[in-house]
Amino acid sequence: MDLLKEKILAEGHVRDGNILKVDRFLNHQLDITLLNEIGKEFHRRFSHLPVDKILTAEVSGIAIAAIAAQYFNVPVVFAKKLESKNLDPDTFEGEIYSYTKEKTYKIRVSKQYLSQGENILILDDFLANGEAMKGLMEIIDGAKANLVGAGVVIEKGFQKGGDQLRAKGIFVESLVIVDSLANNQITFR
Amino acid sequence: MDLLKEKILAEGHVRDGNILKVDRFLNHQLDITLLNEIGKEFHRRFSHLPVDKILTAEVSGIAIAAIAAQYFNVPVVFAKKLESKNLDPDTFEGEIYSYTKEKTYKIRVSKQYLSQGENILILDDFLANGEAMKGLMEIIDGAKANLVGAGVVIEKGFQKGGDQLRAKGIFVESLVIVDSLANNQITFR
Repeated sequence: MDLLKEKILAEGHVRDGNILKVDRFLNHQLDITLLNEIGKEFHRRFSHLPVDKILTAEVSGIAIAAIAAQYFNVPVVFAKKLESKNLDPDTFEGEIYSYTKEKTYKIRVSKQYLSQGENILILDDFLANGEAMKGLMEIIDGAKANLVGAGVVIEKGFQKGGDQLRAKGIFVESLVIVDSLANNQITFR
Repeated sequence: MDLLKEKILAEGHVRDGNILKVDRFLNHQLDITLLNEIGKEFHRRFSHLPVDKILTAEVSGIAIAAIAAQYFNVPVVFAKKLESKNLDPDTFEGEIYSYTKEKTYKIRVSKQYLSQGENILILDDFLANGEAMKGLMEIIDGAKANLVGAGVVIEKGFQKGGDQLRAKGIFVESLVIVDSLANNQITFR
């Protein structure tokens, strides 16, 4: 997706530890025009599949999923990270190790919002080691729902998550794949 | 906003402690069609004002602000609650006391994403005691930006936040005002 590559080159920043900061347009400030193009592109890539609901994880997947869902005409459910008095006690759970936050935490979806047999599309901002995806897939498994595919805005192709998911037969679509962030240079596949 | 009232009556639930749960359509599962109508309504109410950017707070304001921003053609910035290695150290800060979580926490916006003199519209899901709004206004003050108004989906009219903000001369628009949740009954103004 050329528009996205141009945006990443113009406004992304590489930080130590293979971190690609896209705060300026994707996960702190949100470029809504770009998010709309991202949503259209996800729809183009997944429109041949049955999608009943889009699942994402808070925080940075929410805006992406919400804007994209307009093109699929389906609801979004986002898995919650934070303990909340307001969350139903009866939840499907997944576990995520965050390399940036250096800790393991649980994500949860109320059992009311995922049903057996529902066709679920996962959308998220990044795919690196696949930890968030693993947690979301545990939730889908818990609900006996059906994972139809996973769309990510930016895949770090030099980390193992994307290849592992594809090896399991999961249909993964990344709008851009970054093959290297070495020497603070962004190299796309 | 009648559509929203009908949705709240049909799918909202009242819990002890004056909690109105709208997880089914507004802040866990997201009804994107409804969010679009909410976005259009916010635009109708604020379109006479100059708006350069929409500010909200994670988590539950993000989808609302992102969908609404499409009608304003402006970017969104969301204040971050969580400590993150990836957040710039140089931030504008606000402080919020959460009655549901029973603790005070800081919210932050990178100084890169708010500028002196920018016209900022705050959008959020709930207005109750006005704590989140206070934190967001501290951030806007820190940036020497200009608060043009605040739009909330649901105002709890029996709590003090809305009246206090209006008494300060802030233009507050609530799509619905709930006057009572007593006896598990939702009463609109």
